[in-house]
Amino acid sequence: MGRWVIISTERARRPSDFAPAPATKSAGTLCPFCPGEESRTPSELFAVRPRGSAPNTPGWTMRVVPNKFPALRIEGELEPSGEGLYDRTTGVGAHEVIIETPDHAASLATLAPERVADVLGAYRERILDLRKDARLQYVMVFKNHGETAGASLEHSHSQLIATPIVPIMVEEELEGAERHFRLKKRCIWCDIIRQERRGEGRIILELDGFVALAPFAPRFPFETWILPSPHRSSFEDTDPGELLALARLLGEILRRMGKVLGDPPYNFMLHSAPLRTAGLDHFHWHLEIIPKLTRVAGFEWGTGFFINPTPPEEAVRYLRGEVPGASVS
Amino acid sequence: MGRWVIISTERARRPSDFAPAPATKSAGTLCPFCPGEESRTPSELFAVRPRGSAPNTPGWTMRVVPNKFPALRIEGELEPSGEGLYDRTTGVGAHEVIIETPDHAASLATLAPERVADVLGAYRERILDLRKDARLQYVMVFKNHGETAGASLEHSHSQLIATPIVPIMVEEELEGAERHFRLKKRCIWCDIIRQERRGEGRIILELDGFVALAPFAPRFPFETWILPSPHRSSFEDTDPGELLALARLLGEILRRMGKVLGDPPYNFMLHSAPLRTAGLDHFHWHLEIIPKLTRVAGFEWGTGFFINPTPPEEAVRYLRGEVPGASVS
Repeated sequence: MGRWVIISTERARRPSDFAPAPATKSAGTLCPFCPGEESRTPSELFAVRPRGSAPNTPGWTMRVVPNKFPALRIEGELEPSGEGLYDRTTGVGAHEVIIETPDHAASLATLAPERVADVLGAYRERILDLRKDARLQYVMVFKNHGETAGASLEHSHSQLIATPIVPIMVEEELEGAERHFRLKKRCIWCDIIRQERRGEGRIILELDGFVALAPFAPRFPFETWILPSPHRSSFEDTDPGELLALARLLGEILRRMGKVLGDPPYNFMLHSAPLRTAGLDHFHWHLEIIPKLTRVAGFEWGTGFFINPTPPEEAVRYLRGEVPGASVS
Repeated sequence: MGRWVIISTERARRPSDFAPAPATKSAGTLCPFCPGEESRTPSELFAVRPRGSAPNTPGWTMRVVPNKFPALRIEGELEPSGEGLYDRTTGVGAHEVIIETPDHAASLATLAPERVADVLGAYRERILDLRKDARLQYVMVFKNHGETAGASLEHSHSQLIATPIVPIMVEEELEGAERHFRLKKRCIWCDIIRQERRGEGRIILELDGFVALAPFAPRFPFETWILPSPHRSSFEDTDPGELLALARLLGEILRRMGKVLGDPPYNFMLHSAPLRTAGLDHFHWHLEIIPKLTRVAGFEWGTGFFINPTPPEEAVRYLRGEVPGASVS
C-alpha cells in the first residue's frame, strides 16, 4: 500500500551481524575518512583540494566518495516486476558520503562558515550532477551525527541517496502543500514564516535571507527547521553567497544545540523538490534538524503520532539564550 | 499537514532531563511493577487475581494500571482551537500499563500460554471499556521490550493509549485497504494470506486460526505480522478460545526470535479497526512485531523508505529453523 523498502544485501544480514556495536569508537588513526587513508574509500567523485593536487591524495578540505556499502547502486537498469499483489524493482540509485572535514575531531558546529559552505556546495554539485541521470527522481541529503542517530563512523560526514522513485514522505509533503496552495494560492512555508514573524515565539534566529524556527507541532524536542526566507523550491538553485549565509546560520544553530543539550546526537534531512520539477509555487525547500533525545517506540510506530515532552516555545527560549543559567554563547 | 503531535508536559522537559539513562537497570526490589509495590502505581483498573483478594494487594498474576506519567489523561473536555494556520486541542485520552506478570524476570516468551492469553484478554477488556467513552476514537495497544526499543522499566509490560482522533497511520492504512477493496472486492490482508499460502516462503507458522508471516516489504529485519486467518476487523471481537490460540502462536514466535536473535529489543503494535466501526469488510486486524536491530536514521526520517539488510525469505528460514546451526527450539 504505497510502502517501498530497500532490501540491501550488501549490508549485514546474518542474525549474528546485528550484535550491538562496541561502545569504544574507532581511534582517529583507524578512520577511513582521515587524510592519508584515501585508498580505503571508493574513488572520490568531488573534492575541495589545492589546485594541482591529485584526486585521492591528502590535502583536501572536503571530499565526496561513493558509500562503500551502498543501499543503492548506479549500475544496472531499473527493472520493475509484479509478484501477485506486490511490486518489486531492481535497486538503481546512488549512495554517496560527504566527508565534511579532514579533521577527525571537527564537526559542522566547529568548522569555519566557509568550510560549512563547501559542504553545502558539495550537496548542490552532487544534486546537479545526479540530475543528469534520467533514471533518478530524487536526491535525499541527510546527516546522522552520533551513534544513537545512526552514524557508524564518528568522523564528521553527511550522505546522500538518489532514488528512482520520489519517496513516499516527499510525495505526501508535496500533496499536502499542493492542497494548501490550491485553496489559498500561497506557499504553506511562506505562510508559516509570515505567521511566525508576527511573533508567536517560535523563531530562533533570522540571518541574511534564512530563518531558523521551531515548527508548531515538532515530533521531537528541539526539532528545528531552516528555510530560505524568499520562496525557493529547489535547494540546488541556491547561489554561493546564499550558501555562505546558510552555513553561518546552520553552524550557529548546531553550536547552540550543542551548548544547550550537550552535543546531542541528531539527524538532519534536506527536503528539496524532486529532480524533475523546477520552480514549484507550492513547495519551499527546508532543512529539518531532529536531535535524538527521546526514543521512538511502539506508540509512534503504530500511530504516526509523536509524544514530545518539550513545547516548541520552550525549546526556542533555550536556543535564544533566554533561559537564565542556560547560555548559548 | 495532517500531522498531530502530543506535547506532554507531564514528562521530562528541561534539557538536562534528556541525559542518557544509566546502563544499570533497576533491581527487582526497586521495581514498581513487582508484587508488594502496588501502592507505587495508580490504582488498578483491571486484574487477574484470586477470588476475594483486594485490589492493589499482592496475589495478582496480571494487572492493568493508569500510566503514572500519562501522555494523555481521561479528565477534561476535548477543546479544539485554531491558531492561524495551525490546530490545537487539549489532550483528552487514556494511557494505561498492562503489567503482564508478577515475576520480574519473566516475559511473554517465557510465560505459560494461559498467562499470555490473560494479557491479550486484558487488551480486549480495556478496549471494550474505553469504547464506552464517546470522546475516544482509537485505542493503540503496543509493547516496548528492551531499553533500545523504548522500555523505561524492564519488568515485562505493555501499554495502551486511547486517542480522541484516529491516528494518521491508521487512517492511511484504512484508506489504502479501502482502495484495494473498492477495486477487487477483497480484503488486502485476506489476499496476502491467500498469496503467501500458495507458497512464496514468507509464512513462518500457522496455528489454530492464526498465521505468522514476514511481510513482502518489511521495514525491519525479522519484522513479523500475526493475523487471524478468517477475516476479522476488530481485535476486541476475539473470543477466549481464540485468545489462547493467539497466545500460543505469539509466545512461540517471540521464543524463536529470542533464540535466533539473542533476546532482541522489539516493539509490537496491535492494528485494530477504530472504535466507532464494526465488521469492516476492508480491514483485517493484525499484530506487527518489529525487532530493533537496525537504527532509524536520516534517510528513513526524510523519505519514509527503509533500508533492510535482511530479505524476508531469509528471516523466515531462520524463524522456521531451516538454517543449519540456527535452531529455534
